[in-house]
Amino acid sequence: MIDNERPREIAAIDIGSNSFHMVVARVVGQSLQIISRHKQRVHLASGLDSCQNLDQAAIQRGLDCLAMFSERLQGFDPDNVRIAATYTLRQARNAHVFIKRAERIIPYPIEIIPGTEEARLIYLGVAHTQPEKNRKLVVDIGGGSTELVIGEDFNAHLLTSKHMGCVSYHKNHFAKGKISAKSMAAATLAAEQKLESIAGKYRKTGWDSALGSSGTIKAIREVLVESGHSDGVITAERLLELTDKILQFKQVDELDLPGLTDDRKPVFPAGVAILNAVFKALKIDEMAFSDGALREGLLYEMEDRFRHSDIRTRTASAMAEQYNVDMEQATRVKSTAEMLYDQVESQPGLAKTELATLLSWGALLHEVGLSISYPGFHRHSAYLLRHSTMPGFNFEQQSVLATLVRFQRKSLKLNEMPELTIYKRKHLYPLIRTLRLAVALNGQRSDEPLPNIKVKANKEVWEIALPQGWEESNKLLAADLKQEQDYWSKAGWKLAITS
Amino acid sequence: MIDNERPREIAAIDIGSNSFHMVVARVVGQSLQIISRHKQRVHLASGLDSCQNLDQAAIQRGLDCLAMFSERLQGFDPDNVRIAATYTLRQARNAHVFIKRAERIIPYPIEIIPGTEEARLIYLGVAHTQPEKNRKLVVDIGGGSTELVIGEDFNAHLLTSKHMGCVSYHKNHFAKGKISAKSMAAATLAAEQKLESIAGKYRKTGWDSALGSSGTIKAIREVLVESGHSDGVITAERLLELTDKILQFKQVDELDLPGLTDDRKPVFPAGVAILNAVFKALKIDEMAFSDGALREGLLYEMEDRFRHSDIRTRTASAMAEQYNVDMEQATRVKSTAEMLYDQVESQPGLAKTELATLLSWGALLHEVGLSISYPGFHRHSAYLLRHSTMPGFNFEQQSVLATLVRFQRKSLKLNEMPELTIYKRKHLYPLIRTLRLAVALNGQRSDEPLPNIKVKANKEVWEIALPQGWEESNKLLAADLKQEQDYWSKAGWKLAITS
Repeated sequence: MIDNERPREIAAIDIGSNSFHMVVARVVGQSLQIISRHKQRVHLASGLDSCQNLDQAAIQRGLDCLAMFSERLQGFDPDNVRIAATYTLRQARNAHVFIKRAERIIPYPIEIIPGTEEARLIYLGVAHTQPEKNRKLVVDIGGGSTELVIGEDFNAHLLTSKHMGCVSYHKNHFAKGKISAKSMAAATLAAEQKLESIAGKYRKTGWDSALGSSGTIKAIREVLVESGHSDGVITAERLLELTDKILQFKQVDELDLPGLTDDRKPVFPAGVAILNAVFKALKIDEMAFSDGALREGLLYEMEDRFRHSDIRTRTASAMAEQYNVDMEQATRVKSTAEMLYDQVESQPGLAKTELATLLSWGALLHEVGLSISYPGFHRHSAYLLRHSTMPGFNFEQQSVLATLVRFQRKSLKLNEMPELTIYKRKHLYPLIRTLRLAVALNGQRSDEPLPNIKVKANKEVWEIALPQGWEESNKLLAADLKQEQDYWSKAGWKLAITS
Repeated sequence: MIDNERPREIAAIDIGSNSFHMVVARVVGQSLQIISRHKQRVHLASGLDSCQNLDQAAIQRGLDCLAMFSERLQGFDPDNVRIAATYTLRQARNAHVFIKRAERIIPYPIEIIPGTEEARLIYLGVAHTQPEKNRKLVVDIGGGSTELVIGEDFNAHLLTSKHMGCVSYHKNHFAKGKISAKSMAAATLAAEQKLESIAGKYRKTGWDSALGSSGTIKAIREVLVESGHSDGVITAERLLELTDKILQFKQVDELDLPGLTDDRKPVFPAGVAILNAVFKALKIDEMAFSDGALREGLLYEMEDRFRHSDIRTRTASAMAEQYNVDMEQATRVKSTAEMLYDQVESQPGLAKTELATLLSWGALLHEVGLSISYPGFHRHSAYLLRHSTMPGFNFEQQSVLATLVRFQRKSLKLNEMPELTIYKRKHLYPLIRTLRLAVALNGQRSDEPLPNIKVKANKEVWEIALPQGWEESNKLLAADLKQEQDYWSKAGWKLAITS
């Protein structure tokens, strides 16, 4: 039911390595109307120590910012807020500490998203912002990572995220803020090395327009505009000119360029060096700036999921196809799992829908590992779901899927369960039990539909009721369920079978 | 050069869970003439303790048998002997102890082969033995595993190896040698459970003739023949008849059936139970016995590799295709690796050809992991090469390939190198160095052919000579090689670059 009186409001927060951003929009008809933007420079990445731990000060800066954002989101439904964290939380060994403390401050889950997912969302943000539908190259130089995407319309075709950003390159190449021709050249060469493996493919694919997004490229454009290039177009020549201007200064804090803010100064030379490398590696002629970015991508995708289709459905189907999944069996297991899970009480405090959806995808993909080999295929399935590039999924969701399929069969070595950040083990157990039962009940891969099966869940004790006579006439199924009971009991769970 | 005066002699040894077999053949024109067969019951599997370690007595029995076989092989060239070990050495945690000690007794490498590889070779042995070219189901119940294959002509289409064999089922279901209707039924049901996941697919695929190979099925046929079924055909009905006869005895050592040898008695009921399950699961009408088996498969494949094509080439190409490998880049890296390796001295004591071949396949497949995701793709490549079903490759070869691609780039964490049984680390280091150089030299994925490059290897110190001026005009390459030097030096190796 859509309430026509008050348009739905949605919000996206981008926990970046340099700044945190929040954008709030109103859903008006088929489009989004941005109603507020908030930005705070948190310098999260500069709080990463040599062991890749975030220091307390950086954590506190981040939490303070989230507390501020949280005030603006009073009364927002969880379905209407998405928070995505990028490079710095991907890298931080103690990311879970940050997330645990953030949970108390802002009541929406923080998703750590993979680099390719960041790239895809940035593309989506730009694609929704720009009027042209042609083939676009989108480049985003962040604090910790740089994303490069080629796409057409709303579909990203090539997605890359590289571990290089203006904050990390500043640290590595401009020690103590010293600027020199040598350090600019070294930073540029290092960035070119990073791009070497993809440059050929990107050049061959080609694009109609090159667009840059986010802070680094925006700052470069402003300086160019203030220096007289009023069209704001970035070209290789203008970048060299800019480099020469930078080299007139010896220290980053002395940088005095028109349009350059104090905040941006420290990481500006590193950002220019990286963009220089991008221009050289991809042989870009000119680049325009686009206002779209990760946060807009998050917003548009939220709206898409709500209104249209979830890209994750497409991802899951594509993956099932890529790994030649036996779709008949996958569909059988999926329906059984859904039928059983519907009977199990929902978990208090958590939207059942998201977990139920993950269960369905897990059921669809539980046999992807068979394409590698039969022995231990549940582990192969888990490997693929954990490590594959899966558009639309964040790390936590991939981890949940990997865990589900890992525990679909054989003994329940629950000590091998990974640490999760958003969900807890107790949220996953019902999904694991459901998938296992669905797999066991369809063990014979038979075309005959299953009879009516009832299941009751009471914490660790589950009771499954089979139609009378079914088990007796199906000795193999009875043996499989018996074995399943043994596995459960060794894990401290109980499976009661009645008829 | 083929010496027409004396035909080539080749030999294959099958290190089975119950018996060791050796077969020696003469290559005469286009066919093989078997000239001797040797069999010794070693009961290797019964030496596996509860921790999956082979006990000393079993190891000694195995070594004694190999010593005897070795005498017959005096003067055989390494290219003319293949030794394959199956289930028990696959399972034994201390397999390396057996193999290390065997090295001193029999101077040919012992390959531990994966179950699907065992299945494929059995099929090959049967296909070469039977005159018909029609679609065949081949079943082989061994001491530790059961193989089921459907193939046509010499090509196996469905390959399965299940962890169930007459020795292990005897241990698990006929404790203290006691026979009962209950234990026969339980063993049969357990075997049916094992077959549940594949039964539907096999039945759907179908076959023109069902054939059984090796000891268990041979023994069953003999008993049937001696009991009056002189055609030797095994049917479901006759198996039930046989089961009834077995149930007239209370202990396996009391079994007194016509045609049943004392040696076979202990594992006979378990074998009958498994075959019963195979008949039930696949709904087999009748099965004939074929003389072909694993050892014949080894022989025919040795001859094929020598004369015609190596199935591993087909496997590697199929895998490159399945994972959408960029074949242009793979071919470039492969040629460079071959060109460099040719210049490196061969390793004393080991046929260079085998290692060189593995290097070529490694180069062809080094990027398979990219299909999973870019970050850490060398690890994904390694995972796929270690765990995939790869017809023609044994475990050691897959492990070498996985190790090569694992170390193709990034830091050389050599402590992560796996233990190998046939090769030593020092054999792999030159391959790793070669592949890394080939990858680095082709880092730009350029269509332009590489210039002439010279390499000299002197233990840990390698010297690579580039054409004058090439490095200067190619700053990215220079930076990549510089980084490579750092990686080498951290691993205690040295890479000198001259021009």
